[in-house]
Amino acid sequence: MSLIVQKYGGTSVGTSERIKNIAARILETQRHGNSVVAVVSAMSGVTDSLIKQARDITLKPTDREMDVLLATGEQTTTALTAMAINAMGGNAVSLTGGQAGILTNNIHTKAKIHDITPTAIHRHLQNGVIVIVAGFQGHSTTGHITTLGRGGSDLTAIALAATLKADHCEIYTDVDGIFTCDPRIVPTAKKIEAISYDELLEMASSGSKVMQSRSVEFAKKFQVPFEVRNSFNNNRGTIVKEETAKMENVAVRGVSLEKNQAKVTITRVPDRPGSASRLFGALADTNVVVDVIIQNTSESGATDISFTINKEDLEKVGPTLESVATAIGAGKITKHDGIAKLSVVGIGMRTHSGVAAKLFEALSQGGINIQMISTSEIKIAVIIDAAHAEEATRLVHEVFYPEREIS
Amino acid sequence: MSLIVQKYGGTSVGTSERIKNIAARILETQRHGNSVVAVVSAMSGVTDSLIKQARDITLKPTDREMDVLLATGEQTTTALTAMAINAMGGNAVSLTGGQAGILTNNIHTKAKIHDITPTAIHRHLQNGVIVIVAGFQGHSTTGHITTLGRGGSDLTAIALAATLKADHCEIYTDVDGIFTCDPRIVPTAKKIEAISYDELLEMASSGSKVMQSRSVEFAKKFQVPFEVRNSFNNNRGTIVKEETAKMENVAVRGVSLEKNQAKVTITRVPDRPGSASRLFGALADTNVVVDVIIQNTSESGATDISFTINKEDLEKVGPTLESVATAIGAGKITKHDGIAKLSVVGIGMRTHSGVAAKLFEALSQGGINIQMISTSEIKIAVIIDAAHAEEATRLVHEVFYPEREIS
Repeated sequence: MSLIVQKYGGTSVGTSERIKNIAARILETQRHGNSVVAVVSAMSGVTDSLIKQARDITLKPTDREMDVLLATGEQTTTALTAMAINAMGGNAVSLTGGQAGILTNNIHTKAKIHDITPTAIHRHLQNGVIVIVAGFQGHSTTGHITTLGRGGSDLTAIALAATLKADHCEIYTDVDGIFTCDPRIVPTAKKIEAISYDELLEMASSGSKVMQSRSVEFAKKFQVPFEVRNSFNNNRGTIVKEETAKMENVAVRGVSLEKNQAKVTITRVPDRPGSASRLFGALADTNVVVDVIIQNTSESGATDISFTINKEDLEKVGPTLESVATAIGAGKITKHDGIAKLSVVGIGMRTHSGVAAKLFEALSQGGINIQMISTSEIKIAVIIDAAHAEEATRLVHEVFYPEREIS
Repeated sequence: MSLIVQKYGGTSVGTSERIKNIAARILETQRHGNSVVAVVSAMSGVTDSLIKQARDITLKPTDREMDVLLATGEQTTTALTAMAINAMGGNAVSLTGGQAGILTNNIHTKAKIHDITPTAIHRHLQNGVIVIVAGFQGHSTTGHITTLGRGGSDLTAIALAATLKADHCEIYTDVDGIFTCDPRIVPTAKKIEAISYDELLEMASSGSKVMQSRSVEFAKKFQVPFEVRNSFNNNRGTIVKEETAKMENVAVRGVSLEKNQAKVTITRVPDRPGSASRLFGALADTNVVVDVIIQNTSESGATDISFTINKEDLEKVGPTLESVATAIGAGKITKHDGIAKLSVVGIGMRTHSGVAAKLFEALSQGGINIQMISTSEIKIAVIIDAAHAEEATRLVHEVFYPEREIS
């Protein structure tokens, strides 16, 4: 008998009908001879509406109370899911994060899982009962309700799969898995059969937001393979696991596009120790995430530094940049918000040469200018004009995944 | 320093503005030098909407899961109330029933409080923190979430007041207290300053639904005096407590009217042991609450038995009555749903003579026919035609509480 941990996201439980749908799926999984633990999120829209309720009370709710409030969203889904399974003749119980033994630290609204004591889960499973666990939440060591922050339900599922030594961990969402590219941009994108944690991490940081990076990092750390699947059909999904030798046969696993980027250039930054540190230290204090940073070799005692940030953050960093630039004696600041980041990701790059050349060639043939380049061991990212971003993505995808069929 | 337990019902926390209102009241109570534990209900409408969500899943949800679902209603209010207090500069924490140490038996949806372990509450109070407790819920001895059934939040407050040996227990609602009569029927009804548990119990069973009988019985059992107050103003409310000698000075504490009653008469019931038992045993099996029962002395070997029930239950008892009447060899069954029950209640009746006479005289002068009479030690109830019920109530109230002012 296998133990299967499943996780159903907000859209998969968004209505009564959808809850009944996943209840049937969970029950069927058990009837195939498995023990099942299902982690559920709040119904889509519920968390936002709870946040709105809090904001109607105060714009600065205390974190502890925000957790107590938000935790009701998942608790509601667990009860509805368990009653749906029971109504279908199954035997299910719902557990809050605390009841499931998910112990966290005391950092409200973004708690870290500390330990899991799955006594109650084990007892129910031994009795043949399906266990529905509220995702995204736990209890702190001092007995308070905590929540795990964005992507928290995925974390709950992966942590439970690790603790329970589950045979399979399935992350259900509203798409068929992870694709070689966003199918809304490239209709010929293919579903990826298997992908390594590192590749998914690089793709996640490049705009393929199937899962939060945190959850993937956690799965990698505890070596929990999982499958990203669609709760609305029975297709096999994408397996995410430690890399295998076979995975290296493919140079490029996927192509990601991140729109809504902005580029900032500061000219004539004095080339002495501490300039960059002051600049990016000040940006970090504004809580803005800086993505690509480029600094060229300096030959004149001063250099230009460029970096990219989310377009929404552009206004936020203005005053900070002005004052730092003045303080370090830099030149002028230019900002440009019409850019996008295109990335190709694949562990095969480490052994396949020529990936960069192929990428640049594709862009060049499309007449697309490369403004910045940034590389990691398994990723090449280019910053290009947003106006041509989708066209560029199609061209690049076609180079690495040529569509041979005549459509 | 006094310890005050307050309870706020659904209408008192029905909107964000109202939650802020009670938050201010709670904070003010603390700033007057008191320790405060506040029990809150679900916002009005929320419990109904959760029940609807469950019914969208299944018409027969499992009780355990219903409790998990419903408990989210009060939990939401506790979080919002605590954050409102914190936003006003106070220091409050919310606790679920389980966190507050409210231990119940395992009878889901109508659990009984077993014990309270107020360790967490004491710790917070000692630190000067206001404690907001989710009403209506607890944890069973086996760790499941339970709810206490109708009127459960009042029960939570009274049980906490008993356990914590609170100096005051205040039950906040949307009326100023308990009145000598329903002010919608008798505009000159007066607020009662103090009333005994027994009187309130008799009035509650006679249609004055300020509180469920269960909570009042519980308060009586544990000798917890409490005050019913209005959360929308600062008026003093009605104190409910053990009877005092002074209370006996008033013959009639209040006049209650219960409309929507129905009367059933079974003629020629054979006057032998077991007839009544079979009749009312069969009715009990249908879960219908029988109120007043009248059987006159029999002189002919057969007697007429009449009883009253809620109008809504009339159809439900039809088939049962037919079969029992046939089985015991009774005559015909007549049903009449146009009746009401008018009651006068007061512990003073035990020492004041003539209350019944005064009541009958008032009705007689109004030309109102009495169909049935039923008395207890501290109550006289009459069954009258529903068409004249409100007029009768005004006449009777005027006799016991004459309005002297010229308005």
